[in-house]
Amino acid sequence: MTRPGEGQARLGADIGGTAIKCGRLDADGRVVAEQEVGTPAREGLAPLVDALLGALATLFAPGESWDTFRIGVGCAGLIDPRRGVVVSSPNLPGLRRAPLRDAIRERTGIAAALLNDANAFVLAEARLGAGRGMRSVIGLTLGTGVGGGLVFDGELWEGEQGFAGEPGHAPLSLDGPLCVCGRRGCLEALLSARAVSSRYATLAGVAEAGLTPAEISRRASTGDAHALAAWSETGRILGQAMLGLSHLLDPACFVIGGGQSRAASYFLPRAEEELRTQLLWSDERVPLVRAAELGPSAGWIGAALAGPGAGSDRA
Amino acid sequence: MTRPGEGQARLGADIGGTAIKCGRLDADGRVVAEQEVGTPAREGLAPLVDALLGALATLFAPGESWDTFRIGVGCAGLIDPRRGVVVSSPNLPGLRRAPLRDAIRERTGIAAALLNDANAFVLAEARLGAGRGMRSVIGLTLGTGVGGGLVFDGELWEGEQGFAGEPGHAPLSLDGPLCVCGRRGCLEALLSARAVSSRYATLAGVAEAGLTPAEISRRASTGDAHALAAWSETGRILGQAMLGLSHLLDPACFVIGGGQSRAASYFLPRAEEELRTQLLWSDERVPLVRAAELGPSAGWIGAALAGPGAGSDRA
Repeated sequence: MTRPGEGQARLGADIGGTAIKCGRLDADGRVVAEQEVGTPAREGLAPLVDALLGALATLFAPGESWDTFRIGVGCAGLIDPRRGVVVSSPNLPGLRRAPLRDAIRERTGIAAALLNDANAFVLAEARLGAGRGMRSVIGLTLGTGVGGGLVFDGELWEGEQGFAGEPGHAPLSLDGPLCVCGRRGCLEALLSARAVSSRYATLAGVAEAGLTPAEISRRASTGDAHALAAWSETGRILGQAMLGLSHLLDPACFVIGGGQSRAASYFLPRAEEELRTQLLWSDERVPLVRAAELGPSAGWIGAALAGPGAGSDRA
Repeated sequence: MTRPGEGQARLGADIGGTAIKCGRLDADGRVVAEQEVGTPAREGLAPLVDALLGALATLFAPGESWDTFRIGVGCAGLIDPRRGVVVSSPNLPGLRRAPLRDAIRERTGIAAALLNDANAFVLAEARLGAGRGMRSVIGLTLGTGVGGGLVFDGELWEGEQGFAGEPGHAPLSLDGPLCVCGRRGCLEALLSARAVSSRYATLAGVAEAGLTPAEISRRASTGDAHALAAWSETGRILGQAMLGLSHLLDPACFVIGGGQSRAASYFLPRAEEELRTQLLWSDERVPLVRAAELGPSAGWIGAALAGPGAGSDRA
């Protein structure tokens, strides 16, 4: 499928709470360079744009300028892609209601695409990663928080206002644990790093402090039954989440990313089994369940692929 | 927006467990005639097609024949709209893996659209009912069972295999009550007629037998505190379901139909409040929440609007 802007080099950036990752794709979508700088998270919009554009400018070849490229920027938090505004972002307190696209346009003359970082992740995995070739992909990022997004017919579903793709705050367990958002039983409260640690601590009867998912995986690799059980229960819950999403949306594929996906071998088989055995149409085709393939670059790659028009032209 | 088949008269049918409702729309989408016959639910495909086509034929004017019309058929159960097959339908045991579209084509020469009845409901409400003019509508039918569907950019999202739109079997409460499907805490287990009756019976400390939602509404109208509380809790749960759907999909509008929607005044305000106060972007626009407008005709109207191509042409 040919899309506007194909054939043009692209720059992408992924603004997180600690680092801005960015990179360059050639006209065929191949990664040709990457760059990373620290995020000035609290200083406000101007210093952040300085850091962002400084990092992107290192990716220019001699003679190139901003208008050589299509540029996309993924950002953690609640993003308004239509207006190009960072509405709020817990890890970027300097950016409340920040008109990031306008600020970039003032400095470069370019109308960059702005989108949520997890949406960018899903777009990258759907087009170039674990979901490539699939018509409909639901991505979930399991990390400190839980995010995700939906790609239908090769394009992000951004929703009426551009806010779609926040599955982390869909409730799955109305009487479940409190979420950081103040609600109960959100996907994030059940599948975040903290939730996995808490699950292990409860099973093992130990204190939670210092228990990361990486440490729980290490213990699982030594045969620790509590660690294996904590991952298995995490898989069961992920499977129930995918079951609900499948009954609602019938996607071709789920792509699971984020820090917890490094432990995919401990929880993804259980999640797949839950989905496969409980799906209403389990006699028909069951959605594929895959671990993400593009690693920490997926965010900036997805932003680069979004290009101008992801959201902004569809409003 | 102009769609293929606009300008042509349409026939629609809605096959339920007890009745086949059908009707005729003129070229402008106005209802010009309706008809209803009993469903031969257990006798197999041929008697059902006889009843269906017999009812539809009463809607012909002199000189008209099957090829005067576009025809759409909505059917309860798991429907494969791409292949035109009723995969399974609990209330239509005669139709397991029944090639309904082929059977209609053999008798009429027409390739009818086949779709799930709740999807048809949502399409009708999105185009001509409570969701008209909206870009994205999520419909939920709360009745004996719980169904629904999704309309994005004016078209049904049918999913990879055509099975999308079964929100009734998305889990909302992992430790919740058993659902008829065998899973726990499905939307249907929390919002069906049976769930409302059971909620009231528990609150009032009475036996559930004979307590219909209509009776609970009657008691609510007399000020029965348990009845009001049962409806309010139903609204809270519906609000949590809409909250998750909003965070995932950011729709413009929810349309609530089915038998329970006759009691909308007792539960919809609470559902709306739950959504409005807990939405992540409650400072921005909150999705509208509306009771369905087209009544029991919505199913056949939506089927008629689907026309050939709903699903079948998009595979």
